[in-house]
Amino acid sequence: MLSGKDRGMGMVWFVLPPFAALLALGSAFGFYRWVLGHGEGTAEMRRIAAAVRKGALAYLRSQYRLVALVVGGFFGLLIVLSLLDLQRPLVPFAFVTGAFFSGFAGFLGMRTATMASARTTEACRGSLNRGLKIAFRSGAVMGLVVVGFGLLFLWAWLVLLLRVAPEGPDQLAEVTTTLLGFGMGASLQALFARVGGGIYTKAADVGADLVGKVEEGIPEDDPRNPATIADNVGDTVGDVAGMGADLYESYCGSILATAALGAVLGPAAQISGLEAVLAPLLLAALGIVVSLVGILLVRCREESSMGALLGALDRGVRASAVLLVLGALGLVFLGLLTWGLFVSVVAGLLGGMVIGWSTGYYTSDEHRPTRGIADRARTGAATLIIEGLAVGMLSSAIPVTAIVTAILVAFGAPGGFDDPSIGLYGVGLAAVGMLSTLGITLATDAYGPIADNAGGNAEMAGLPAEVRERTDALDRLGNTTAAMGKGFAIGSAALTALALIATYLMSAEFWAQQMGQELDTGAALRLDQPLVLAGLFLGAMLAFVFCALTMKAVGRAAFAMVEEVRRQFREDPGILEGTAEPDYDRCVGISTRAAQRQMVGPALLAVGVPPAVGLILGVPGVLGLLVGGLTCGFALACLLNNAGGAWDNAKKAIEKERVTYEEETDPAHEHPLTGKSSPSHRAGVVGDTVGDPFKDTSGPSLNILLKLMSMVSIVFTPLVVKVSPLIQGWLGIH
Amino acid sequence: MLSGKDRGMGMVWFVLPPFAALLALGSAFGFYRWVLGHGEGTAEMRRIAAAVRKGALAYLRSQYRLVALVVGGFFGLLIVLSLLDLQRPLVPFAFVTGAFFSGFAGFLGMRTATMASARTTEACRGSLNRGLKIAFRSGAVMGLVVVGFGLLFLWAWLVLLLRVAPEGPDQLAEVTTTLLGFGMGASLQALFARVGGGIYTKAADVGADLVGKVEEGIPEDDPRNPATIADNVGDTVGDVAGMGADLYESYCGSILATAALGAVLGPAAQISGLEAVLAPLLLAALGIVVSLVGILLVRCREESSMGALLGALDRGVRASAVLLVLGALGLVFLGLLTWGLFVSVVAGLLGGMVIGWSTGYYTSDEHRPTRGIADRARTGAATLIIEGLAVGMLSSAIPVTAIVTAILVAFGAPGGFDDPSIGLYGVGLAAVGMLSTLGITLATDAYGPIADNAGGNAEMAGLPAEVRERTDALDRLGNTTAAMGKGFAIGSAALTALALIATYLMSAEFWAQQMGQELDTGAALRLDQPLVLAGLFLGAMLAFVFCALTMKAVGRAAFAMVEEVRRQFREDPGILEGTAEPDYDRCVGISTRAAQRQMVGPALLAVGVPPAVGLILGVPGVLGLLVGGLTCGFALACLLNNAGGAWDNAKKAIEKERVTYEEETDPAHEHPLTGKSSPSHRAGVVGDTVGDPFKDTSGPSLNILLKLMSMVSIVFTPLVVKVSPLIQGWLGIH
Repeated sequence: MLSGKDRGMGMVWFVLPPFAALLALGSAFGFYRWVLGHGEGTAEMRRIAAAVRKGALAYLRSQYRLVALVVGGFFGLLIVLSLLDLQRPLVPFAFVTGAFFSGFAGFLGMRTATMASARTTEACRGSLNRGLKIAFRSGAVMGLVVVGFGLLFLWAWLVLLLRVAPEGPDQLAEVTTTLLGFGMGASLQALFARVGGGIYTKAADVGADLVGKVEEGIPEDDPRNPATIADNVGDTVGDVAGMGADLYESYCGSILATAALGAVLGPAAQISGLEAVLAPLLLAALGIVVSLVGILLVRCREESSMGALLGALDRGVRASAVLLVLGALGLVFLGLLTWGLFVSVVAGLLGGMVIGWSTGYYTSDEHRPTRGIADRARTGAATLIIEGLAVGMLSSAIPVTAIVTAILVAFGAPGGFDDPSIGLYGVGLAAVGMLSTLGITLATDAYGPIADNAGGNAEMAGLPAEVRERTDALDRLGNTTAAMGKGFAIGSAALTALALIATYLMSAEFWAQQMGQELDTGAALRLDQPLVLAGLFLGAMLAFVFCALTMKAVGRAAFAMVEEVRRQFREDPGILEGTAEPDYDRCVGISTRAAQRQMVGPALLAVGVPPAVGLILGVPGVLGLLVGGLTCGFALACLLNNAGGAWDNAKKAIEKERVTYEEETDPAHEHPLTGKSSPSHRAGVVGDTVGDPFKDTSGPSLNILLKLMSMVSIVFTPLVVKVSPLIQGWLGIH
Repeated sequence: MLSGKDRGMGMVWFVLPPFAALLALGSAFGFYRWVLGHGEGTAEMRRIAAAVRKGALAYLRSQYRLVALVVGGFFGLLIVLSLLDLQRPLVPFAFVTGAFFSGFAGFLGMRTATMASARTTEACRGSLNRGLKIAFRSGAVMGLVVVGFGLLFLWAWLVLLLRVAPEGPDQLAEVTTTLLGFGMGASLQALFARVGGGIYTKAADVGADLVGKVEEGIPEDDPRNPATIADNVGDTVGDVAGMGADLYESYCGSILATAALGAVLGPAAQISGLEAVLAPLLLAALGIVVSLVGILLVRCREESSMGALLGALDRGVRASAVLLVLGALGLVFLGLLTWGLFVSVVAGLLGGMVIGWSTGYYTSDEHRPTRGIADRARTGAATLIIEGLAVGMLSSAIPVTAIVTAILVAFGAPGGFDDPSIGLYGVGLAAVGMLSTLGITLATDAYGPIADNAGGNAEMAGLPAEVRERTDALDRLGNTTAAMGKGFAIGSAALTALALIATYLMSAEFWAQQMGQELDTGAALRLDQPLVLAGLFLGAMLAFVFCALTMKAVGRAAFAMVEEVRRQFREDPGILEGTAEPDYDRCVGISTRAAQRQMVGPALLAVGVPPAVGLILGVPGVLGLLVGGLTCGFALACLLNNAGGAWDNAKKAIEKERVTYEEETDPAHEHPLTGKSSPSHRAGVVGDTVGDPFKDTSGPSLNILLKLMSMVSIVFTPLVVKVSPLIQGWLGIH
């Protein structure tokens, strides 16, 4: 596979990915310095920002301690497996680096975000444009660090492995097997970052709201509320570090899965060998360059409207997408990509955009679904909840159709219906295409919590109303981009998971061959086979159970927070009077500990079930499990993300009195949809609170579940292939 | 296949099914006469019962008009298809009889139920035992009529077809193909009965509660509430006629799918030909006899506790199950069933029981899940909703595991891992085994709404409190059996759907062969093929979208009811003062029209999507669609049924002040969990209202979706097999 021509070509293209990765990291550093160069405002503002920073880093420290333990345990297990010849020798080391750099990227992004919030507030005292630029470029640091580290170390491992691994027909397959270890490390880190961060942020948020807003009637971000700092920490922990780790995993996962699929392309494909392995890295490198251009394009006038702000972000994202398409066209003309594969890349890119748009449609109060939910507040919380759930369920239709279309086009365009190997490679490239502009899309996402924290800072520091108005404008924009970002995250997770599933099958065949076993990949994997069906049932169930565990975790953690806030108010009445300072640290500590403790259950489930199912039901069962989890989990995640976002915005619409309705009904029994503390608003708050764990914990956690289960399955393939026949023979399943 | 021995054997066993069916119908008539022989109480009681009866029949009439239209349309379509040689000539006629007798059984069951409610109230004035017997035996009429008609006409069609169809190797395959038309008729009727009934009952219930209980503070079933009669009609329409049609469909579906699978058994099976086709009918006949014995065993002492009542029902159900196992053993010794298939039957029976028990566990206030939900009422409606959803999601774990285990055992025991054809037949027999005792399990189910209506009658007629206490005891028991019945209904629907899916593949192969086409049933149906994956994604999505549509339908219909009740209260203040009689008929009319209008969308989806997907994605896509809908829909239905049931009982637990909790928290901010109209109770009411469409509309409707999609797919197979290659060629999918 490594022909002379490939090698010559490779030498040139080998240089581009590290160059782009270093460019990303350098730009990130530049943006970081630029942000630091701005003032952090008054002493009070600095004090608040420092408290949030301290809390965030304390949380990260405790999370990393836990992750280090788990990663250490897995490292040991992988070492044992590789000593038993049930895994490649370098896999444990690749695994550790994957986990480490995911964590490191999260740390850097979060540090930047906590450095930026007060500076954004300070800039907003000047003008909206300055605030936007600081917040957005801080978000860009996260985006660029993620793609930079991801691409750099994938490339470094690839180079190392090509040197170390013995040349021969199996070389590429073995190289990509090891790279998948890197992916699993990233995946495991993402699990803890996303699930733990999701629990942390919602425990603090729900806890702060239930006692502060509902019971005591004090406003959001009021400094008298002991959970305020924890709430602000939570935004960064969940939406910056958690989202970053999630997309770092998707980014690495899609690239390495596609590289692995490229290594086994059939002879009918017009692209093969090293070229096919390198193509996803090249595409990613291209994506970094166009993302940087897009980031630099984001700016607005000194005092802009909400629409102009959104337009500024949109311009950057759209410019990147168009440039990427042009760049991919360039690759076609250079002969590095076939026309069919070009179509695959575009299908992925478009699919991601459609999903993002549909999320915007379902969750924005400009459109019918969310307005309909707000309207139901007139008959109380129950009808508002029912309508929100119904809207959430309906909202899966467009994303599923978009993903299905993207899959079919990406598979069919390069000729997959004649040679499935090139079709699956096309699906992988579609995932890479969707994720290639991550540098900028993640920036628009990470920008949200920074703006949110800037608003919190303004409120707590008692700045003039106009500052808060400006930060609020940035924050509202952040909510819209966050909802679209969630759609994008689940869409890319689905395509990545699919590529990983294809890789899983490849890996199962590879290992069965290595062990001289016969693996029936024809009829045994048919959809009507009982082992496959059993796996599908279990996968669908697992998606629901995983969601339930994360939801319950939020409930328990929020309850602990409620107790603590109530205790502080009770024991020191001076807090509510504003004469005594609440104990913020205890609330931060509660969220930190609760997040850590409560994420153990979901984590065990995600990591433990795939090997357990594999040992009993074998490769067909695992395949069913992965596909069942993917198909059901994707629709479920749409429901959770969109219902949650729609309830949030429905509540805000009620607050803004923006909902109009016909006066056909008896006014005596109507709850007018007007402003805060009306019965309608109380109903809206119930919806918002139900939606909190939906959109910020359970929904995003599903992204991780889909990918992690595939990663774990791949890493444990040799064990499953070796041991499951024995167990099945004993059980009479064969 | 019809060897001389088979035929001789057949002549004997041909007699048993019609005998059992006629026995069931005769007993049903006997019970009906027995119930009618009891007094209907005071003039007021009779008047109320007559109003409910009138409303119920009015609804049925309007439903049947709609169904007649749709059935007529389909009949025409099938005639056209059969003229085009795209369907067997007798299929349209089988289809019509299937639909007709499903509707007729529903009519008889409902008529009995509406005759029985006042009689149950009257009997409760005497003693609890008399009330139980009347209510239960009226429910038994529904159960026996369903199994009687189902088995009788399946048998009649079989006999007719064996006479009419040309003898030869394809005879049995053709016979079963036609029988599936009968199944689709039943399925279509079930769709309208279940979905329409579900919308009707919840529109009336939610509408009555929102204005009556919440706004005006008048109790349930208060005669001043104009929606009271509609609410009582709804119970019968949804839980008697809807549930009956649902299980009639499962019953017929499981028998005929198994018969079809039996027709194509491979040579390795120790049972074959007519014997295998007749075995499910024989098992069903056996089930009728043991159900009758069980029904006669249900009785209690004159004044019994709740536990004793439940024990009485349990005794009957368990006795039937044990007798069925013994009977099946007898079939083994007679050489009509192999040991392996015997294990399949038992696996189905046990699987159904485990699902029923787990439903009881998750929804009864005796156990932790529901008590935990009630406990969350202390922090308001939002936390109660979150906990309920989490419990619902978790509650899918046991049923899915039970179904998966039942499938694997039922498939493996008769030797399915060596010869899949016998394994699939085993899965079919497991479904038949689970459903064979339907005569009694449906009786325990249909009994619930009768008891519920009896309570409503007692309240409206102003009978002494002790009567209402007795009917309440019967009603509470009915809630428990109803929850278990829902678990059983979805479990049997899943196995039936699975058998139908296997039949679908068989039918696709049959038709492809007839048309001289090549159908790749190996690699093309592999789980990682894009067409299969696309189908799976779409199937999972369809389950969610179907749910959303039914939920929205309830919301819209309930809203119309709310408007009407408010209007009546406003325009005639005498109603609330008790001096003027409300206009019950208008409310009945609103529910009737709303149910009819709102069920069109979900119906079109269920009937239209499978052929549409088939035409574009072909047989692999349809297979994916069916399996994706089944696996995701099953877990979703568990969530909906159990969360709904748990919220209902959590509210009741709060009313009964039965929830204890630790006094660790600040009493000043606690909502005490005490009795009605406390803040906790208001939170409980929100949960109950959200759960209403969950457990009585959307959840049960999913049962129908799973089966109907398979039926529709089977009936449209020839069209899909013929036309889809052309469309796919044009689209470049091949």
